[in-house]
This record gives sequence, structure tokens and C-alpha cells, in this order.
Amino acid sequence: MTASIQNDTFLRACLRQSTDYTPVWLMRQAGRYLPEYCATRAKAGSFMGLATNVDFATEVTLQPLERYKLDAAILFSDILTVPDAMGLGLTFTQGEGPKFAKSVRDEASVAQLEVPDMDKLRYVFDAVTSIRRALNARVPLIGFSGSPWTLACYMVEGAGSDDYRHVKTLMYSRPDLMHKILAVNADAVAQYLNAQIQAGAQAVMIFDSWGGVLADGAFQEFSLAYTARVLAQIQRSFEGAVIPRIVFTKGGGLWLQQMGELDCEVLGLDWTMNLGLAKQMVGGGVGVGTKGKALQGNIDPNVLFSPPYKIITQVHQALDSFGAPHTDYKTNGPTHIFNLGHGISQYTPPEHVSALVDAVHEYSGQQRRSVART
Amino acid sequence: MTASIQNDTFLRACLRQSTDYTPVWLMRQAGRYLPEYCATRAKAGSFMGLATNVDFATEVTLQPLERYKLDAAILFSDILTVPDAMGLGLTFTQGEGPKFAKSVRDEASVAQLEVPDMDKLRYVFDAVTSIRRALNARVPLIGFSGSPWTLACYMVEGAGSDDYRHVKTLMYSRPDLMHKILAVNADAVAQYLNAQIQAGAQAVMIFDSWGGVLADGAFQEFSLAYTARVLAQIQRSFEGAVIPRIVFTKGGGLWLQQMGELDCEVLGLDWTMNLGLAKQMVGGGVGVGTKGKALQGNIDPNVLFSPPYKIITQVHQALDSFGAPHTDYKTNGPTHIFNLGHGISQYTPPEHVSALVDAVHEYSGQQRRSVART
Repeated sequence: MTASIQNDTFLRACLRQSTDYTPVWLMRQAGRYLPEYCATRAKAGSFMGLATNVDFATEVTLQPLERYKLDAAILFSDILTVPDAMGLGLTFTQGEGPKFAKSVRDEASVAQLEVPDMDKLRYVFDAVTSIRRALNARVPLIGFSGSPWTLACYMVEGAGSDDYRHVKTLMYSRPDLMHKILAVNADAVAQYLNAQIQAGAQAVMIFDSWGGVLADGAFQEFSLAYTARVLAQIQRSFEGAVIPRIVFTKGGGLWLQQMGELDCEVLGLDWTMNLGLAKQMVGGGVGVGTKGKALQGNIDPNVLFSPPYKIITQVHQALDSFGAPHTDYKTNGPTHIFNLGHGISQYTPPEHVSALVDAVHEYSGQQRRSVART
Repeated sequence: MTASIQNDTFLRACLRQSTDYTPVWLMRQAGRYLPEYCATRAKAGSFMGLATNVDFATEVTLQPLERYKLDAAILFSDILTVPDAMGLGLTFTQGEGPKFAKSVRDEASVAQLEVPDMDKLRYVFDAVTSIRRALNARVPLIGFSGSPWTLACYMVEGAGSDDYRHVKTLMYSRPDLMHKILAVNADAVAQYLNAQIQAGAQAVMIFDSWGGVLADGAFQEFSLAYTARVLAQIQRSFEGAVIPRIVFTKGGGLWLQQMGELDCEVLGLDWTMNLGLAKQMVGGGVGVGTKGKALQGNIDPNVLFSPPYKIITQVHQALDSFGAPHTDYKTNGPTHIFNLGHGISQYTPPEHVSALVDAVHEYSGQQRRSVART
């Protein structure tokens, strides 16, 4: 199935299949910590100038793969492209992050929301196709979107927030309006991800970056239910290849058991969750036909500020915490895709990333060889 | 023991004793959402002008009690008074929050840290004594401090942070230095809380506001262990009265079981944690001599932006989630102290707070009467 990809470790791990080592990629791996990224961004003039230009988007997506032995590429784009296509007018102001020209806070603005014409997002799909071509089957390409709830946070707040006051006010005061926004978002996200798959994305990830700010009860009703609504509409395969679906809720550790019931292949974890415990809870058993979630994560991006020998120790601890992987290629079992627990910081020294990536490959390979020996 | 207090509901609930209704107070209840607070602050000129003036601190501590039937008062102060007394130079800049003149990031600055002379914090203890006098035994007074880890976050960052880059860099790179800071902080916090107790605080609370940003493993090593070190040094009673100790780690739900082993009486919860589940996990059994933690929390402060009838529904849900309380005055059992899951927002309409407080008292009283009938 994944024979046409030179390095299919990531896709195999997504499907709980055995691999020779633990695959690794990093959220926001194409980003400001790389001088070559900053150079391309300077040429593009702005963040959206970068994201909407197919050549630039292709260039920056591939940059981290030139430096590091990463096992997957992720589309360079932003989680807010969908609400932008809905007409909310996304801009990025220097140092302040994303801002929408219009926010959605009342009955009238909610009534106007609809699933955008996917043609408005053509630049994203074109970038996916271009990146696939440029990757030339080296590693698989991951497509992505923000979750319905996370998009709603930005749409209602009109920008980032530290208290989520407006979106939660709407949610607690007018849950009916919030449900309308989320239903439109879910259907839009599903169409968006399907179009990415058709353009060439070989796995898709839903970033529920702000699910963790919700109260217990509200998370299930306003975030999880709409992530499930997206998943139900995503196509399961394309041109004969299964398309793994990854769901990552930052701060969602308390709801892991419930997330384990989502119809997806992989759950992303942040650093607050113990990997070994997560594996026990949702990783499933070993054996033909066993079910469970592959786990992706989860070290604190701030680990990358420590010296390489400390980074290596943290990598070993995370791999040990997940435990020895299964090594029988004929069966299924719990698998781990190494990643950070959140996007890499812009202040990360690029050479520290090599230490992490190489340590994951080396140590996880050793783990398997020592299991095979015993 | 608490006979001299007119309303001892809060203290009884801290000790897992039965009460006629669920006591309620609100984190940051003396705050900017109250126009009378803003008026006093304007007179004081600055936040520290307010906090360091005994009369002003007394005035604002009592303000919310005039408006609402709250079951406890909490000292008006700031969590950063201790590092200020260590000589770091605390100021509050308009709209930007706390800032230290010096930050602690290297070997030399760590070596200089020591437990401050408690005389430098005399203004806090004088405020405690003055507030106790002004309260005239209406409700108990809670003293508080930031946790060692939370203080360290500010001391290393030099201000608030959204990525904790500097403090985590130090922690991952030089854990030895971080342990030194935390040891000094723990001993300072213990002395600080003991002095508050001797000045009249009838319960004390440790705010681990930033414990939840730590990775699993790091939380136990750098936050929980030092909270335990504080608790081990806090005096258990004063003038014959037991002094309940409350520990609140925002975002600490994943570590609740481990926090259940702390030597304290009450655990605070934020809104991500299910109250019923928390009660099952750490609330203890019913019966003479049973042990467990009283639970404090936990609705989202943003609930207060919704109309009063919605607030009331959320209060009922939280009380139902905790479940019917034990009503036998002769025994112990799980108890609940109603609170928000974090400080009240400055944008809260003051009249909405009445709806919450009254709903807690009414509904929790009904719960007990209906248990007594069955």
C-alpha cells in the first residue's frame, strides 16, 4: 500500500504497523527558527504572501527535510485559511499574530456563515500537489486543518485570546448560535481536508489547539462532537491508499479515554500526558486485528533550548516511557510517532533539532533490536 | 473549634465536616470587576500602593462581602510579594501585569537568593491582622502565597510569559540551579504562610498557577515536590484551631491522584476536571476517621458572562456533578467548597456574581434537605 513511498515509516506507524525505528516529525517544522525560512518569508513579504504562493509554500515545506532526517512533511499553511475563505478577512500583524477583519459574535453574523466555495482555497490544494511532486516520494505529506472549535475561537474572538471571553460568552449565553458556527465549521473542515487528500495529502491532522481551554462537559459538547463530525465525513482512502487521520487536542489529556473512541487512527498528545499511561489507555493490544490509537508526541518544545546531551536524555526518557515497541511485521500493536507536544519555538537553535531527530532514530532502533534479542 | 466564627461553613467543609449548604468564595473576589475596588485603587495610586497599605488592603478585602453572601474572605495581596521581598523589585505596569527589575537566570543570581527577612513582608501580616479585626468573626480569613514553582516562573522570566521559555530553559539545562531556587522559595513560602497564620489567617492557600504548564515528570519534580516541602513546614494549628491548607494547581487535573497524597486538607480544581470524578478519586469515604481531600472549585469564570438564569443552571450542574453531600454532623465525608476554576475576570458584571452565590446556597441547601428526606 505504501510501497511507492521510499520512507513509509510514518504511515506504517499511523496504522499501528511495526517499523524499524520510531518515525519523527515536528509540528511547525517549517518555521521561523530556520534562517532559510525567514529568507523565503522575507521574499514573500508577508505570512499570507508565503502561504498563498505555491512555489514559496513548496520551498518552505521542504526546507526542514533538507536539514533533518524527518519522516514526514507537513503542508506549510495556516489553521485559519478556512475562516478566511468564509470572508472574515485574515491578516497577520507583526508580532501580534492573526487578526480577522470581521468577528462572528451575533445572530446576524452567524446567519451569514456558510461552508466556503473550496475554489477560494485552491492555493492550498495547489500547494499540496506541488509539494507532493517536489517530495518525489521521499516521505509522506500530511495535510491539516484547525478543528471546528479552534476555528470558532478565532472567528468569535477576531484574534488570539488569553481568556476566550467572547467565544465562551457566546457559548454559555447562546449555545444555539455556537452550535451553528461549529456545524458550518465541521462541514467546511471536512470538505477542506477531503480536497487536500484529493490533491495529494497522504495523512491529515486536525489541530484542536484550543480544545483544552474548555470545561469538562463543554469540551465534549463543543469540541469533541464536532471533531467527530469532521472525521465522519473524511474519505478513508484515496487511490487505494488508506489516509490516516490524526487528532491533536492540546491540553486534552483528561479526555483521552473519550478521544480514544474517535474514528481516527492517531491521537496527538502534549507533554502533560504520560506516554506510557496513554498507551495503556488507548494504545490497544498486540495482535492481528487489534484496535487502538497510534500515539503522536509529546516532549515540551522548550526541551530544545537545553544542550544537545540533555535533549538526547529527554528523547530517551520519552521513548522509554512509551516502552519497547512490537517488532513483528505481521501483526499490529501500539505505535508511537515522535513529535513535540506543540509547535517548535521560533527561538530554537536549528542544530538542536538534529540532536533530537537523530536520537529518536538511533535509540528507537536500539530498543527494537534489544527486544528482538530477548 | 470554630465556634467563635459566626459562619464557619467554609472551615467545616475544609475539614470534610457536614454543613447546611455548600460554602462559596471566589478567587480574586476583591478585584477590578467591582467599581468600589477601582475607586479604592485609584485612591491608592497603584496596585502595590493598594497592597502595601493596611487600610486600603482591609477595605478592598471586605468589599465583596458587603455585596455577596460569601463564606470566606481572602487576604488582598499579590502572589509575588515574596520575590519582591527577596529584592527583585516588583512593579505593575498598566495593562501589562507584573514585572521584576531583576530576573534570576544564572548561577550568580541564583547564588544570591535567600529566604527574605519576614520583616520586609510586615505590611502583609499587618493587613491580615487588620482584616481579621474588621471581619469581626463574620467569616474566616484565607491567607495565601504563590507556589515555589509559580514564583520561580516569574522570577526567571522577569514577568508573565506565554511560553515559559526562560524558566524551562533553565529547568532543562540547569536543573541544579532550578532546584536551588525552588528550595529557597519553598522555605520562604512556608515562613510567609506561618507568619500569616500567626497574624490571623484561618486557612492558607498555595496557588500553583503555573504548575499545569509543566511536562509529566517535570511537574512532580519541580512543582509538586516543593509544594510538599512547603506543606511539611506549615504549622498545623494556631491557638487551638486547625488551619486548613488548600493547594490549587491550575491545569493539574492529570496529576490529581498524586496531589491526593499531599499533606493538605483541600485541593482546588479548575474547570477541566470533572467534580464527580475528582470526588471519587480523592474525596475519601464517609464515616468517622475517613480521610480524603475536600474539593474546591470549579466553574469557568467565563460562565459569569452569561445571563443569570444560565449561570444558575451551571451552578446546579456543578453541584449535581459533585453529588449529594453527607448530612450527618457526627461524621466525615467528601465535601465541596464552591469556587471558580480560576480568578474572576475584571469584565464580570457584578450583579451576575449575586446570582452565582445565591444559587450555590439555595440549591446546595435543597440537595441536603432532599438527602435527609430519603
